[in-house]
Order: sequence, then structure tokens, then C-alpha cells
Amino acid sequence: MGLRKELDQKDPLAIGQELHQFAAQLYPICRSITGNGIRQTLAMIQKRIPLQTFEVPTGTAVFDWTVPKEWNIRDAYIKGPGGKKVVDFQDSNLHILNYSAPVRATMPLSALRPHLFTIPEKPDWIPYRTSYYVEDWGFCLSHNQMLALEDGEYQVVIDSTLEDGHLTYGEYFLPGRSTDEILISCHACHPSLANDNLSGLTVATSLAQLLSGNDLRYSYRFLFLPGTIGAITWLALNRETAGWVRHGLVLTCIGDKGQFHYKKSRQGSAEIDRVAAHLLRHTCESSEILEFSPSGYDERQYCSPGFNLPVGCLMRSVWGTFPEYHTSADNLSFIQPKQLAESLGLCAAILDVLEENQRYQNLNPYCEPQLGRRNLYRSTRGVALEAQINARLWVLNLSDGEHTLLDIAERSGHPFSVIHEAAQTLRESGLLSIASENRGPQEKTAHSASAESCGRSSRSR
Amino acid sequence: MGLRKELDQKDPLAIGQELHQFAAQLYPICRSITGNGIRQTLAMIQKRIPLQTFEVPTGTAVFDWTVPKEWNIRDAYIKGPGGKKVVDFQDSNLHILNYSAPVRATMPLSALRPHLFTIPEKPDWIPYRTSYYVEDWGFCLSHNQMLALEDGEYQVVIDSTLEDGHLTYGEYFLPGRSTDEILISCHACHPSLANDNLSGLTVATSLAQLLSGNDLRYSYRFLFLPGTIGAITWLALNRETAGWVRHGLVLTCIGDKGQFHYKKSRQGSAEIDRVAAHLLRHTCESSEILEFSPSGYDERQYCSPGFNLPVGCLMRSVWGTFPEYHTSADNLSFIQPKQLAESLGLCAAILDVLEENQRYQNLNPYCEPQLGRRNLYRSTRGVALEAQINARLWVLNLSDGEHTLLDIAERSGHPFSVIHEAAQTLRESGLLSIASENRGPQEKTAHSASAESCGRSSRSR
Amino acid sequence: MGLRKELDQKDPLAIGQELHQFAAQLYPICRSITGNGIRQTLAMIQKRIPLQTFEVPTGTAVFDWTVPKEWNIRDAYIKGPGGKKVVDFQDSNLHILNYSAPVRATMPLSALRPHLFTIPEKPDWIPYRTSYYVEDWGFCLSHNQMLALEDGEYQVVIDSTLEDGHLTYGEYFLPGRSTDEILISCHACHPSLANDNLSGLTVATSLAQLLSGNDLRYSYRFLFLPGTIGAITWLALNRETAGWVRHGLVLTCIGDKGQFHYKKSRQGSAEIDRVAAHLLRHTCESSEILEFSPSGYDERQYCSPGFNLPVGCLMRSVWGTFPEYHTSADNLSFIQPKQLAESLGLCAAILDVLEENQRYQNLNPYCEPQLGRRNLYRSTRGVALEAQINARLWVLNLSDGEHTLLDIAERSGHPFSVIHEAAQTLRESGLLSIASENRGPQEKTAHSASAESCGRSSRSR
Repeated sequence: MGLRKELDQKDPLAIGQELHQFAAQLYPICRSITGNGIRQTLAMIQKRIPLQTFEVPTGTAVFDWTVPKEWNIRDAYIKGPGGKKVVDFQDSNLHILNYSAPVRATMPLSALRPHLFTIPEKPDWIPYRTSYYVEDWGFCLSHNQMLALEDGEYQVVIDSTLEDGHLTYGEYFLPGRSTDEILISCHACHPSLANDNLSGLTVATSLAQLLSGNDLRYSYRFLFLPGTIGAITWLALNRETAGWVRHGLVLTCIGDKGQFHYKKSRQGSAEIDRVAAHLLRHTCESSEILEFSPSGYDERQYCSPGFNLPVGCLMRSVWGTFPEYHTSADNLSFIQPKQLAESLGLCAAILDVLEENQRYQNLNPYCEPQLGRRNLYRSTRGVALEAQINARLWVLNLSDGEHTLLDIAERSGHPFSVIHEAAQTLRESGLLSIASENRGPQEKTAHSASAESCGRSSRSR
Repeated sequence: MGLRKELDQKDPLAIGQELHQFAAQLYPICRSITGNGIRQTLAMIQKRIPLQTFEVPTGTAVFDWTVPKEWNIRDAYIKGPGGKKVVDFQDSNLHILNYSAPVRATMPLSALRPHLFTIPEKPDWIPYRTSYYVEDWGFCLSHNQMLALEDGEYQVVIDSTLEDGHLTYGEYFLPGRSTDEILISCHACHPSLANDNLSGLTVATSLAQLLSGNDLRYSYRFLFLPGTIGAITWLALNRETAGWVRHGLVLTCIGDKGQFHYKKSRQGSAEIDRVAAHLLRHTCESSEILEFSPSGYDERQYCSPGFNLPVGCLMRSVWGTFPEYHTSADNLSFIQPKQLAESLGLCAAILDVLEENQRYQNLNPYCEPQLGRRNLYRSTRGVALEAQINARLWVLNLSDGEHTLLDIAERSGHPFSVIHEAAQTLRESGLLSIASENRGPQEKTAHSASAESCGRSSRSR
Repeated sequence: MGLRKELDQKDPLAIGQELHQFAAQLYPICRSITGNGIRQTLAMIQKRIPLQTFEVPTGTAVFDWTVPKEWNIRDAYIKGPGGKKVVDFQDSNLHILNYSAPVRATMPLSALRPHLFTIPEKPDWIPYRTSYYVEDWGFCLSHNQMLALEDGEYQVVIDSTLEDGHLTYGEYFLPGRSTDEILISCHACHPSLANDNLSGLTVATSLAQLLSGNDLRYSYRFLFLPGTIGAITWLALNRETAGWVRHGLVLTCIGDKGQFHYKKSRQGSAEIDRVAAHLLRHTCESSEILEFSPSGYDERQYCSPGFNLPVGCLMRSVWGTFPEYHTSADNLSFIQPKQLAESLGLCAAILDVLEENQRYQNLNPYCEPQLGRRNLYRSTRGVALEAQINARLWVLNLSDGEHTLLDIAERSGHPFSVIHEAAQTLRESGLLSIASENRGPQEKTAHSASAESCGRSSRSR
């Protein structure tokens, strides 16, 4: 394939700026786990990739959960004793406790206080708070804003609706030569928070654009969902076929300046886990591999014991560990074009490895083939391409139909790209053939009939 | 079960003092591998737990060994040239080479010397020496005592008997719901040595008292035996059923101030090995895990290749490595109430884990169950019990019928107790059921018929 | 067996001097991958061991390769403008680009230059260069020699022949009780280079001498071959039976003062790999174990995926990493008697372990046997042979028919020799029997018929 090479031919700054501009377009929308905010968001993604959207009615049972009421909000504010708006939803959609029930009331400050949320340690930042499954209302504001509130009567208005409706999510399916799938999932439910998770949404969208038009070994499924309930809903509607996912990535918080973190799947040594670790080791100055834990984003659901899918989570800074997390400081300047472009590049490199990671068969397994007469070895006067030649020897030595190229890369210490190039050179020279056809994804045709058109999720309409 | 909790409700100092007082009662008795010393010792234990005693006749073949003659001693001394007793058994039973044949003779100092044992490096201490299988006689004394001996004729009296009789051991069987057994074994053959092994005898006795009256998953077998020959005899008499032992501990030298040492079983990763390591890691500031070796106490026999039982050895200071070992300095002040109580507490905790370490089944294995509506998850305003919630998520995620609670504790990094509590909470909420019934000990009923009454050793009478 | 003990009874210096003198005899010969140089070399080895030589005709197809033309050289020189020889093959056979086609020409210095090879960084050393598979000619000389060349016409003479002939190799087969084989292979194609590989040739020859006359468990096959093409030829001619090799060592660069390096076989944890690592750990102050890689000497061919034989490579300094490598500085003073003798000793120790590494069966597997009454244990007054007694206990404990003596040595931390001695003592006492007869090499008699006379290679004549 070569997604990474395709990217490398473009101007990285331009790529990054394009990602950042898309994030800027999405930023003002007041998203939540249901409602028009996420619908608008998906519509904007639809302008870039042919996303299919799904509407699941309130009350639908999804495993242990129920699709909640749909929430929409038009306006919200608090007017102080002097009649002036002291907190205004129009200034920032973070001001509202997300999923607040409608309120229209007047009350003294003392009655209002339990409904106000601040961050005393960061007195200028507005926190992001939600109350999805306990009906409540409230406002989030900076601590300094709250300190300035005087005693007196306050008028509180939340012009929201919490009614039967739908949960909305988007899905983009790219069929490949195999019905085995690679899943890219990101949550699309957070309001004006940039790293969490406009970074994931924009990178996933660009990744999907990059993939389309390529000849793909795997089929790809991109999910843009409300966190937790969205993944649970998707899994409930696709329970029988979820097992087609052979590799998966949750993308979240990948636009900030932190180093990359990859959190392993529950399986712990799935191919995606090994691929991510390999690339982080070979391409990043510093990075960290985290063991699986049942805290986090939607990998929690994909990795629940009934599914146990090989889905990891790619992040830069880890959610919950940086001060800007879930505050108004996670804004458009907290994510940067350079970092967004790097994240896209890493995702592309991961997909490249997954696409190309196959088993090969050395066609001259008895002793080394004579590379010299094929001009694949150093000559007395030739320029010694030490790394390439060594990579060829490794590929020949380990291509016994058992080792994948990733196995060879890891054992030899070479980057996957060098091993893959060696394999291509040897294949062109007639020394190597693909051995994994009868093990890889392609031949798993038992379920291929139903994977036609744009994938199985269509059945869940 | 909750033995540890039961202990924690009591005054630890009182527990320790009770243990130390029992050790003080046992201290003066001149024990050996046979004879009235060990009989008296077992009789004193019998006042606390309904110990059954076994008498195996001299000459009985036990594997490669033969039950030796019974040794008893009334008195022993050396009178110097002036007629004064210079070494007197009545002062310390360590003065006699244990198992000394009877002697009544007069001899010059030069003839006596080869029969005298001292520790030149510790000139005030009396060594403990034995000669069980080579008939011999001798005296142990402080090096200073020996230096004070003048030339001349010495009268040597050892009023002992070495005759056909019996080897005596004690056994206490507590039936549980399963016939699978946990073995607690300690040697009871050392004379006035406190750490080695009155510490083991007293802690084992208290542990047995603590267990009785509880509803037990496992059956328990406590053995109080002469070292080596006692364990060999027990194994020979119980060869067919020794395999019922699923977990075992040899208790020795657990009253001194040293840090805990756990020596693994020959299997090396038996459940008892993992449980002990887990508890030492989580409950002790410092401790050490030792690999199995064929030197040591009766784990040597339990772990011989024909049996290969999962039996480890719990110690504080390791035998042979502390200067007081096998000397008169291993006295009642070398063991302390605090340490004895701690050791009992650790043993109780080990048994608690063994009793509770089961596999569970998440009853909602597809995605996370909704903890919030069961009040098992943080709410906007609730107090976040981070560790407990995280433990619940881990238990749910790994309760696939394959992982034990110990597996979950180790993978999550939580102490077993926290994981166990999470499992209980989830079970009460209907989210979890025990999955290990068909793997654990309970259902192994093939041999349960013969385990009635007080256990199979009764057949060896 | 006890090869090492046999060596230890001799004067190590005398052994080393004998090895060095043999190297000195072989040093002047101009060897190449074919031709009279290697024939003379094998003839000199034949005076010491009954080596069988094989002649394989030019043009013979050997897997992906073809046996090349035979190369012989009588003389070569360059005469300068003044008519004086400025480079003379008679001074050093390294002066000729090995395998140079015949030349007789006059040319200006500018035309000659592309045929001259030097080492600018080591201006006094002559490099060793070859051009086996691309027909070419050239001279190697010191950089200072080249700098002294003046402009003018040069007369170039290479009196060589490159014609149809044979590839020659030598093989020495020592039959043992089993048809399973230990392979010792070394390349014999380098001209006047001492460490690479007269060190290997002389040590292998002495090792073969040391073995002969012993009662051998394994059969032994010594190969003296041209590098790469020789190993490929041998494997092609012995393809069906190559699998009889149970353990193998390539010997190269083992005469210099560097520490030992053992490069593992492709299998990575083959018995030879474990034996070499064990001995290096226990007998060398410093040494290094290298992972397998497909660069190196003839282990490349033995470890190609079609064969995947358990063949490692023993070196002191690693080829390519020391400045003298492939230069005139790899001369007779670069290898030393002491180091050659040490290398022979290590090889002997490796073979000793392979011969003696068997599984034993404890004949008293239930509890410890009573060592005391067999005088195998410490008595009250006996000298405590702690290590030996501990080794006996380990051997008894792990001799369950599953663990080899090497397994026991590794788990116990004792050197193999101590464990082996303990096993012999216990066997003599009737406590142990060999268990591995039905797993070891002896009974693999399916292919034994064809292994008669001096081995299967005879069929390839």
C-alpha cells in the first residue's frame, strides 16, 4: 500500500493545517451523546468521506444499557441580582452541565451553589462536566467567575429538551480484498474540547480519505460514536459480526504536544499491539507502551470479555493526566498542526504494516541463494548497502512460512519498512513468495457474502 | 472466610504474648526424633487442638529408611577431677549430643575431648548437635566451659536408653467442603530451641484453632512431626493419598526479627507459591522469595520427585544463616510476641487467599454493565472510590471463567483483598457468579468417601 | 568421556606450542576456495588424522550455486617503470586478489590503479581481497607501497589458471555408539591469515585427535571446507542425511587474545547453545553470547531454513570487528599458543558435556534416600563437602526422567562437571540409573544401516 509514503510526498505543515482547520470548524458545536450536535458533526465529516449515519431510538435495549433520551439545547444562562448574565452558554458550551434537564427558576445564590462546578486549582478555566444517566442540571464556570458572584436572587434558564429521540452515530466502511476488518473508532460526543476528541475525529477522517482509492488487503470500518453508549450500541447491533475485526484502534487525544502512548489491547500481544510498539520504538524519540486496563475510552467495550477484540488505544498525552483535560483549556491552541500531522502519519504507518505483514516462503530454503549473480549482494567494488543486504539475509533465513515480516523485523532489529523492502526485492528476484495467503485474512470467505455493499452495519438500520 | 479479619479484631500484642507463653511452656522439654519429649510436646498441643497421635514401631520400613530406636534420657553430666559437675544436662538439654547412647565411664580429658562440641567463634553459646543414625555419644558445651577444663580424670554419665519403641507424630485433620487438602507441617523434634521450631509449633497450633469452626472450602491437615524421618514416615504411611494435598506450607523459624522468606515449592509456580509471593509483596516492607532447593526442612520430602507436592516453606530468618541457629542463643528471647503474631497473621492471610481464590464469570460479558444505575460507579457528586471502582472494572473485565481472582490481582496490581471485595460486591449485585466450581476442589469427589471421619491418616494406625 | 580431563593432565603450554607450530606449517600456503592450496592443506592435516578428501567437479550444481572453476597460481608481480618488482606474490600471497584471472600486460599507472587495493587507515598492512564469482584481477598492497608508485608504465603479470577442475574438501568421520552426529566445521580456504582460519583448522585437528580412541556416544564429523561454497556443496551432497547432525560447531578466529564469543544457532535454544553458554558462564572470566544472525561463517548454510541444524559458531574476537581481520596483520604472532590451547580446552569441555548430558532416573523417588548410611552425607564429624552433597541432592531431586544433567546444572547453579560427578557417584551407589536411553541418540537406529564404514559422505564420491 504505502499510505505513509503517500503522506511523505506532501507538505507536512499543509497536512497539519488542514487537520487543524477542520478541527476549528467542528470546535463550536455543542455535542453530547445524543442530539443535533453530533448530527451536525457527522454531517461535516460526511462532506469529506461517504459516512453512513445510524439513528437508534431512545429506549432501545443495548446489552445492559438502554439508549437514553435525546438531549438538545438552545440556550442557557444565569442572570445575577442586577439582571446581567453572569454565565452564558453563548460564550462557551462548556458552561452547561452536559445533558442538563430544562430549568427556568429564580433562586438565591445559596440554592444555586450546589449546581455550580469550578476548578479551584485553575481559577480561569471552565470545567467540562456531564450528567448523562442521573437527571440533573448545572453550570460550569471558572472559579474566578464564581468568586465574583454576590449574594442575591439569580435567574436560571436552561432551554434544553430531554425527550424520546435517537442516538446517532456514523460509520464508514471501505471494503478490501478480505472481509476481515480493521476498526478505527473515535468518540464524537464531546463539546468544545479540541484534543479530546476533535483530534481523533479529524485524524480518523483524513486517514479514511487517505485509504480510499487504494487496493486494500483488509476491509476498514471507521466509527464516529458517542463514547461508551455509542460503542455499546454499535456492538449490540453488530454482535454477531464484531469478531470480523482483526485489528483495531481507538483514537483519542492525539493532537497535543505530548509523546505518543499506545495502550495495549486486553489480549496484550495482538498483532496491533506488536505493530504499534514496533513503530513507536523505531520512529519516535520517546514514547510509552501502556498495559491494558479496563479504564479508558471505548477500548473498554471492544475489550470486554465477551468480545475481547484486539483493539488498542493510541494517544499522545493520556486522558486524565494533563491539567487541560476536560477543561476549557483543551482548546484549539492546545492542539497543533505539526502534532496532528504526525499522528496521522503514525496511523498511516500502522495501517501500512498491518497491510503488508505477511508470511513469506524462501523458494531456495536449502543454503543461501547466490545473491551475487542477481546483483543483490556486495561485489568487490560495489557500494555495500549493508543494512539492505543484511535485511535480505534475514528475510531469506526466516521466511519459512512461519515468521511474518514483523517477526523478522523484531528478531533482526531492522525497521519493518526495511524488511518489507527486502522482501519485495527478493520477491521480484523470484527468491520469495507469499506464504500466508492460506492463513491471512483473504481466504476467510465463509462470511464474505454478507460483507458486500458497504458492510454489515447496514443490516442494523 | 476471613481469618485475617478475625485476627485483626483482636489485640495483636495479646495474640503474640499468648503464642510466646505457649512457646515458653514447650521450651524446657528435651525433644528428639523419638521418645517422651515429643510425646509430651504433642500432649500439650492436644490441650489446644484435638490432635491425633500416631506411634510407628522401631524397625518399620519407610521408603529407603527405617524407623530408628526410641531414645529417652533421664540425666547426663560430666564430673571433673575434683568431683564437681562441669557439664550438666539439668542446666540445658542442649548439653547432650542428641540421641547419645548410654555411657558410664571414667576417662582422661584427652579421651573425652573428641566427644565434646563447642563453637569457638561464639565462646558463650552451647551448640546443638545430633547423631541420629550413627550411634555415638557426646556433650555440647560453651567454648569457655571447655577451655576451663583441666587435665585429669573425668567421670562421664549419660543415663539414656536407645531401645526398640516408637516414632511419634501428631496430626490434626479439619474436614472442609472438599477433600482437597491444605497441608501445614512443622518439625517438633528440636529440644530447647525457640525459633527452630517452637515458633512453627505455636503458630501452627494457633492457626488450627483459628480455622476450627469456620466453613472451610478446603480440608486442612496439620502435621507435627520429627524432622526428615517424621515426614518420610508420614508420606510412607499415606503414600496413596498424599496427592490430595493441593497446597502446603512448612513452617519453621518464624518467630525472630528477620524479614519473611518464602521458599518456593519444587513446582515453582504452584498456587501456594504465587499466593505467598503476592502477600509478601503487598503486605511486607521487605521480604524475599527464594527459589526451591533440595536443602531445607521437610519440603525436601514433600517435594521429592515421586511426590512433587506443591509445598513451600515459610520462614523469617533462613535456617543456617543466622548465628543463633542451632545454638543455645536460639532461646525464648530470640523470638518475640510481635513477630509471632505477625507470622500467624501472614499464615492466616495465605489461607484466606487460598480459600477465596476462585474463577468468576461476568454475567454481562458483552460490554461493561451499567454500574452507575447500581450505584457501583462514581456519580457527578459522589465520592469517587477510585481503587474500588477500578478493581470492579478489572474483575468484570477478566472474569471470563479463565482467570482466578489472584490472576486478576496480579494483572491489575491491586491487593487480593481489594479484588476479592470487588468480586463480592459484584456478586451481590448479580453481575458475577462463581465459575470455578467445576474446576476448584469441591467437585473432586472421587476420593471423598474415604475422607470421612477425621481423614485418611486414621487408616495408618 | 573426559576429554578435558585428558587435556588437563598435559602441559598446556606444550599443547599450545604444538598447535601454533602446526599453524606455522600451514601459514605459507596460498589457499583459495579451489585449487592446490587447499589440497596441500588437507594433505598436511591427513598426516595427523585419517581425513578423507572429496573432489567435486567444476560445474556441479549445488542448490542455487555451481561449483566454480579451479584456480591455481604460480607467480604474480608488478614491475615498475624502472623494471623493479614493486609488488611480488612471492613476498606474500595476500598481494594477489584471490581468484585473479591470468594477466600479462603493460599499462600506465592510471590504468593499473583500479586494480590495486589498500587500507589507507593502516598504511603498512596488506588487505585480503577476493573475487570468486566475478572474473577480475588485481593486487593488494600496503597503502605506503601504493603511495610510492611513480607515474609510468607498469608490467603486470599474474601467472594463474582458472579452468575446469575440482572443488576439494576434507571430511573425517568418527563413528560412535549412535548414528546421531556432532559436526565440527571450519573453513580452509584463506591464504596466509592465521586467526582466520588456521586457528580453526589446527584446533579442529587436535580435537579430532583427542577424540579418537575414546568410546563415543555420538558419531563425529569434522569438515574442512572452502567457506560458503564448500558448506553448500557438502550440504547438497548430503542433503538427506544432514539431519543426523544433532549438535554442531563452526570454529573460526579462535587463536587471538580476545574473549570468547559464542553465536547461537538459528534455533536459539538448542542443546549446543545451552551447553556453550553454560561453559562460558562457568569457565571464563568474561565472554559473550551472541544471538543468531544470518551474517557470519558457514553456520549461515547449516542454519538456512531448509536445514535449520543446531549449529553455532565459536569465536574469540568476532570476524569483522578487529582491525587485523582480513589483513596481513592477522599473522602468526596474532595467534598465541596459550589462546589456542584454551580454545581446544573449551571445545573439549563442550564435547564432554554433550556426551554426558543425559536424563537420569532417581530409583528412590519417594522422599530422599538415606545418604548417610551410604556415606554420601555429612556425618557429625565428617568433613562437609557442601557443594558435592548439595549437587547430589539436586540430582536426586530432579532426576525424574525429564531433566537432563544440564537442566539440573542450570537450575542448581552448579557447574555441569559437579553435577555429572554427583550423578556418577549416585549411580555407583545404586541410587540412579540412566533414563534417557530411550530418548537420547543411541536408539535412533532407523538410519543406522547406512552409517556404517566411515559415514555417509562416502556415498558422495
